[in-house]
Amino acid sequence: MFTILPIKGHIDQIDGFNCDGISAGLKPNGNNDLGFIYTNEPCDVQAVFTENRFQAAPLKHYLQYEEGFKTNFVLINSKNANALTGKKGIEDINTIFSSLSFDLVNPIMSSTGVIGNPLPIDKIVKGANSFDLNAKSGENLARAIMTTDAYEKSCMYEVKLEDGSSFKIGAVAKGAGMINPNLATMLCFICTDAAVPLNDMKEALEVNSETTFNAISVDGDTSTNDTVMLLANKKSNTYDKEAFIEAVRLVMHDMAMLMVADGEGAKKAVAFEVRNAASKEEAQKAAKALSNSLLVKTALFGEDPNFGRIASTIGASKVISDEEKLVISYNDVVVYDKGELCFDEEQEAKAAKVLGNDKFKVICDLGVGEYSFTAYGCDLGYEYVKINADYRT
Amino acid sequence: MFTILPIKGHIDQIDGFNCDGISAGLKPNGNNDLGFIYTNEPCDVQAVFTENRFQAAPLKHYLQYEEGFKTNFVLINSKNANALTGKKGIEDINTIFSSLSFDLVNPIMSSTGVIGNPLPIDKIVKGANSFDLNAKSGENLARAIMTTDAYEKSCMYEVKLEDGSSFKIGAVAKGAGMINPNLATMLCFICTDAAVPLNDMKEALEVNSETTFNAISVDGDTSTNDTVMLLANKKSNTYDKEAFIEAVRLVMHDMAMLMVADGEGAKKAVAFEVRNAASKEEAQKAAKALSNSLLVKTALFGEDPNFGRIASTIGASKVISDEEKLVISYNDVVVYDKGELCFDEEQEAKAAKVLGNDKFKVICDLGVGEYSFTAYGCDLGYEYVKINADYRT
Repeated sequence: MFTILPIKGHIDQIDGFNCDGISAGLKPNGNNDLGFIYTNEPCDVQAVFTENRFQAAPLKHYLQYEEGFKTNFVLINSKNANALTGKKGIEDINTIFSSLSFDLVNPIMSSTGVIGNPLPIDKIVKGANSFDLNAKSGENLARAIMTTDAYEKSCMYEVKLEDGSSFKIGAVAKGAGMINPNLATMLCFICTDAAVPLNDMKEALEVNSETTFNAISVDGDTSTNDTVMLLANKKSNTYDKEAFIEAVRLVMHDMAMLMVADGEGAKKAVAFEVRNAASKEEAQKAAKALSNSLLVKTALFGEDPNFGRIASTIGASKVISDEEKLVISYNDVVVYDKGELCFDEEQEAKAAKVLGNDKFKVICDLGVGEYSFTAYGCDLGYEYVKINADYRT
Repeated sequence: MFTILPIKGHIDQIDGFNCDGISAGLKPNGNNDLGFIYTNEPCDVQAVFTENRFQAAPLKHYLQYEEGFKTNFVLINSKNANALTGKKGIEDINTIFSSLSFDLVNPIMSSTGVIGNPLPIDKIVKGANSFDLNAKSGENLARAIMTTDAYEKSCMYEVKLEDGSSFKIGAVAKGAGMINPNLATMLCFICTDAAVPLNDMKEALEVNSETTFNAISVDGDTSTNDTVMLLANKKSNTYDKEAFIEAVRLVMHDMAMLMVADGEGAKKAVAFEVRNAASKEEAQKAAKALSNSLLVKTALFGEDPNFGRIASTIGASKVISDEEKLVISYNDVVVYDKGELCFDEEQEAKAAKVLGNDKFKVICDLGVGEYSFTAYGCDLGYEYVKINADYRT
């Protein structure tokens, strides 16, 4: 038995983890754009990265370290992704680290922003050299890694084990373009003082990805920079595998849901639940097709219970399905029931009321098997176009 | 040798083909919503349909006829797709045809509009019984089949063969939601008096689909009603296979390009050309990934030469590629050249100028093989959201 309780504050609440964020002049508006995580002693690190074929330079730089390496420093910048920058991109990272006046062990860099521009090395070096490595300012860090995010994203938990011992775990993240096709970067840094073995760190990231970050983005439809990183300094001297895996799931789920709710310009967080599919893969495929459909997303924005677009998207996804077995509902309001037309004015009014909420479920029961999957998405409105037509300039 | 010349007018210019369109009260604004094609003598027909798993009732009704059947009548309505309407949908079509006071041979129905509502049978029967089967009003028909289309879509050609003989071929079509993910219906009716054998009709549709209609929509990402139909009454008594296949290609290309240019709210028609891919499939996959990317489409709307989104989309499509072989250009303006940063202010200004046009190419040379494919798409702006948030209501 264990209990996981949310606690106040940021990752700097964890013993041995310091962090801060500053404005280094990368964002012209003077907002924070450079931050760090520093651990008093080198700690274990594991990460899962984008499946995009063009991995950004910071990912390639990380992968040059030998598996199982320890680090005491993660430097994170926004506004420039350092992606599609060739060998120069990696050289720039080395130049930056060799220009810093700290005692760093296997330093890691992480970047998000515009693709294809060289890093402004001088600004980054100058900014980083002004860091106070003893700072504990999680909020400054959370703001420094934002791009189109409307708000900071972080969470903190304390995990109490049966023997009375406890460890802490928390995360800071950015990501707001998770409305698909997702090419906006998602970064998430999870920190803990649990005495977790290296292998369990990897396992915790992998097993929890499917229902969290991978449920909000189509497989492979990922940016050049997507990163989920887990740093563990073991300072609590306590550990329980089941509790740890569940705590990582909770942290990843929290961050994923904050990203969905912050979908660029999104007003509604929607769970697309596909039930009774013929296989797990088919349930995922159908749920993700729904969360990705422009026509579904714009109908949700318009609060229009146009279930035909839901059905057509299921059909177009080519999963095993039958219009005489299909049932579609918005929360508990059934709008299509196995070919029996049940969409009268009363049902339509009830459905429209559900769609008026900020948060609701679209449920498709395929009725052909026993597998389910929930994908998380949002509506798509004018703001999305505005943000993305204007983003770079 | 043969020549294919565009001629004025609509499909009614072809000997033996009559058509018209009227308002039957399906569209509340009084616009045309019901039309027909009538041939004096029953003619051969071939069609290719949607791959959506939920084929609409009119498609199922068509498929009940035996392969090789002849027809003299196609009835087409807009505003209601008669899809996801179960057995009732097919019964309704039979009811409609048995209530018409004409001598019909294997009549065909075709529908487009909102999914999941029963057909307004009475209005359709009343309207159809008022048809003048001798009418030659192609423009009325073109208007009757429109849904969110901003303009009518039709074309007419005369094909002159070496021996001095000639045949005519033309089409009327609708489709404006071809900005992907495409779930908006595409209907295209091609008519000809060429003395084409039945097998060649099928072949002409199939071989030309890949570079025309399938180049503007992702495979399978199709509506419940998508239909391309070819009607041939053989009245010209002349035929040449090569000329015919090419003429069908031209007609299908014309209609596909009109649909792209009429992408809902689109201002720019864009050709996404992928060169030197490792295989034909990879070239198609990459080109369609570009034409489908929301982030690419919104950047084009913003006239922002943000080539990072192009590169990232190629990477996310997982086709074989290498950032040190990739070259990206807008028309002839190179913005990314094998990892050498060449995107200075001068190039950016030139690129932005290209994007200011109504029509341009985005070219990605993968440099890893010798296969090419061009997908056609458009930008995505506020109008798209407006049209699709408000469509049904």
